[in-house]
Amino acid sequence: MINRLYRLLQENLDPHKVLRDADILEGYSRDETPDMAAAPDILVRAENADDVSMTLKLCSEHKIPVTPRGAGTGVTGGALPVMQGVVLSLEKCNRILEIDRNNMVAVVEPGAVTGDIQKAALEQGLMYPPDPASLETCSIGGNVAEGAGGPRAVKYGTTKDYILGLEFVLPDGSLIQTGGKIVKNATGYNLAGILIGSEGTLAVITKIYLKLIPAPKVTLDILLPFDSLDQAIDAVHAVLMNRVIPAALEFMEQDAISLVSKHIQNTIPCADAGAHLLIQIDGNTEDQVLADLQTIVEAARINPDRMFVAQSPSQKERLWKARRSIRESIQAECGFFAAEDCVVPRAGIPQFVKDLKAYFHYKALRSVMFGHAGDGNVHIDILKDAIAYDEWKNMLPGIKREIYSRALACGGTITGEHGIGCLRKEYLPLALSSDAIDLSRRIKAAFDPGMILNPGKIFP
Amino acid sequence: MINRLYRLLQENLDPHKVLRDADILEGYSRDETPDMAAAPDILVRAENADDVSMTLKLCSEHKIPVTPRGAGTGVTGGALPVMQGVVLSLEKCNRILEIDRNNMVAVVEPGAVTGDIQKAALEQGLMYPPDPASLETCSIGGNVAEGAGGPRAVKYGTTKDYILGLEFVLPDGSLIQTGGKIVKNATGYNLAGILIGSEGTLAVITKIYLKLIPAPKVTLDILLPFDSLDQAIDAVHAVLMNRVIPAALEFMEQDAISLVSKHIQNTIPCADAGAHLLIQIDGNTEDQVLADLQTIVEAARINPDRMFVAQSPSQKERLWKARRSIRESIQAECGFFAAEDCVVPRAGIPQFVKDLKAYFHYKALRSVMFGHAGDGNVHIDILKDAIAYDEWKNMLPGIKREIYSRALACGGTITGEHGIGCLRKEYLPLALSSDAIDLSRRIKAAFDPGMILNPGKIFP
Repeated sequence: MINRLYRLLQENLDPHKVLRDADILEGYSRDETPDMAAAPDILVRAENADDVSMTLKLCSEHKIPVTPRGAGTGVTGGALPVMQGVVLSLEKCNRILEIDRNNMVAVVEPGAVTGDIQKAALEQGLMYPPDPASLETCSIGGNVAEGAGGPRAVKYGTTKDYILGLEFVLPDGSLIQTGGKIVKNATGYNLAGILIGSEGTLAVITKIYLKLIPAPKVTLDILLPFDSLDQAIDAVHAVLMNRVIPAALEFMEQDAISLVSKHIQNTIPCADAGAHLLIQIDGNTEDQVLADLQTIVEAARINPDRMFVAQSPSQKERLWKARRSIRESIQAECGFFAAEDCVVPRAGIPQFVKDLKAYFHYKALRSVMFGHAGDGNVHIDILKDAIAYDEWKNMLPGIKREIYSRALACGGTITGEHGIGCLRKEYLPLALSSDAIDLSRRIKAAFDPGMILNPGKIFP
Repeated sequence: MINRLYRLLQENLDPHKVLRDADILEGYSRDETPDMAAAPDILVRAENADDVSMTLKLCSEHKIPVTPRGAGTGVTGGALPVMQGVVLSLEKCNRILEIDRNNMVAVVEPGAVTGDIQKAALEQGLMYPPDPASLETCSIGGNVAEGAGGPRAVKYGTTKDYILGLEFVLPDGSLIQTGGKIVKNATGYNLAGILIGSEGTLAVITKIYLKLIPAPKVTLDILLPFDSLDQAIDAVHAVLMNRVIPAALEFMEQDAISLVSKHIQNTIPCADAGAHLLIQIDGNTEDQVLADLQTIVEAARINPDRMFVAQSPSQKERLWKARRSIRESIQAECGFFAAEDCVVPRAGIPQFVKDLKAYFHYKALRSVMFGHAGDGNVHIDILKDAIAYDEWKNMLPGIKREIYSRALACGGTITGEHGIGCLRKEYLPLALSSDAIDLSRRIKAAFDPGMILNPGKIFP
């Protein structure tokens, strides 16, 4: 069956787009999910929507699974062909088709790198705000499929807030367009709404209309040290209630600060603090940004001598270095860790973090927590340390269940950015009722009645 | 069958919630859609989610259509029971359950009036931005069902940008919760995404989690007169590219200005202009708002002596009076009109308006156009004048088809705020391909396999 499909794909697409050399397939057997691999039988590198349509049509006819793949930067195994079959790579569909300055819209193909879109927009004085950590390598199609976030979500929202239109292909090969260069639309169901964050299980996206906004002229980064995480989160409320919405509002708790201090080359400012807030403010004029800074200092009741304000590129770099070095520091410290990204109502962050710390302490585990204070999105990294690999693998499910239960108990959910993928699908029933999962399965069947698209993901 | 259902509803709900007095049913036979009426067989006034669930369950079992109804302010017949059966009114589920200041979230029932939610939020220094024209009477559940917009969409977005979570009931009576007091969520499909704007055809919403933002402290309203609509829209681009995003950015073309001038009591400022922009700017401080005003004046190349700046409440009132009096003026002028709300890419507004004006001139029809310049959302009101009613009814379908075709030809769509409902369903195939409509029908079946929920809407 696979041989026959291979021949048909070669006949119907250019042969150079259809590959099954073992060494090439090997390169498509991993994404950035730790400790997980699965190679496809066939790789298709689509170069346009027709290639995508033909591939899906043939795979539907042969009932062969198709796993769409962007840049492979996901961390929950979304791009891995866990049921084998075809990996449909969109990496060659990577053109930025248009930056429409007057309408403030970018039209792009799904394989375009998010950072490249940002640069192209900025050349026209415009900004595409979502900024996942993998910005420089991840593709916009993957961002849409995963509903990617990033530090700037607190002010600017996530990927879903910038999708004006999509062109996508259903598993039967039909091509559908929804929306376009329009910012309002009440014409039929919001099909883009359900596709965003559907992790490649409903359709394959072939074109994206992105909303752009005017780029701010001035940005300022500051680091505020606090004695405790409680004080830091109180300051977050005070800042927001004083009507300053920072472009980024990141927190690091004490263990994150200590670990980074230990492994980073340069010293980090205020390394003795109980918690850090790393804040970026942006605006139209220097006066406005400085007024916002003044508001923040007063609202957060910060001693101005203690805070660190970065204006030059090298100062900014120093400030963000600590935040960006957390994962690298954990790698250096213990080589291996588990990463979760729960969400809780913002006001619940301190209690959630303290309770989890107590639980990890009881389990004799070290952990590092940090994340997006403005969104209630808490990154929880648990260090393997000297625990034997098998024991670690055995204990992880219980630990995950405990973390998720605590997030849900305080009104949150199990993942805010990374998605469900393969990694969390067995835990979905903790977060969603069986009625909600059944409804989701029926929606899946409405798009993909043959169940060929990215099987083994999301659903338990 | 209806009698049996009536008895069962009376037995299973409190009898006072289940009504079929003809005079009461008559009151539920209309919404604000001109020239359209349909009375239900039974009215259920639900008081909680259990009532909704029981009603839907019984109607599913008896295959009786259910039309959910909020405040009945829709203009496309969405709340009218065109297939008879049960009207399920949510007017008594109208509590504002919580304004959570720290998390900046409102938790409300669907029958709560949007304006009341705004007032409750403002008492805590917070804002719920979406502002449909029917703000003071429409209900939030209807806003979600229709994906309501309003003038502030240019800066703050529409209803969909403020929905953090929903509780809803499927036609089989099962209750589902998605999201909550969280601003990020990557846990399973975005069920809220597809419910927003689904016009009551997929599920009945029983609780809504709304994102709130800090309320701006200062607002300023200005009216800018231009010689032509081209100049006005050029000014819109220039303002936005200079990084000022006004809270509202409304345009009126010459015929709209003239008609309002003729019928309004007070004079309107700059009534001799070829086009008006009515702009609201808001911000944290007076300095910031005045800086934005200066930027607007320079970017729009406006003679400051010509513009009208309102600061006092009575001045603001005078300014918005003209914008709000358009429909009333048309009523006074000719009694009857047809209202469309197409969307085009923003830069396409002048050409779209000019081409339509030429078409209406050729058809010897008078028209008035105005709307949301920042969003490309153009309200098109066509005056019946002395045309006989039957002739008018006969000519409208051809005129609508022409308007929609022109909006679609320039990359827009047929409705930006009002939705499809009964009024536009025959025109949906102009905007969506048969594949897209088929997919939408399958999504409908995934939620509502018995097809009992709001039949006769959206689908041709």
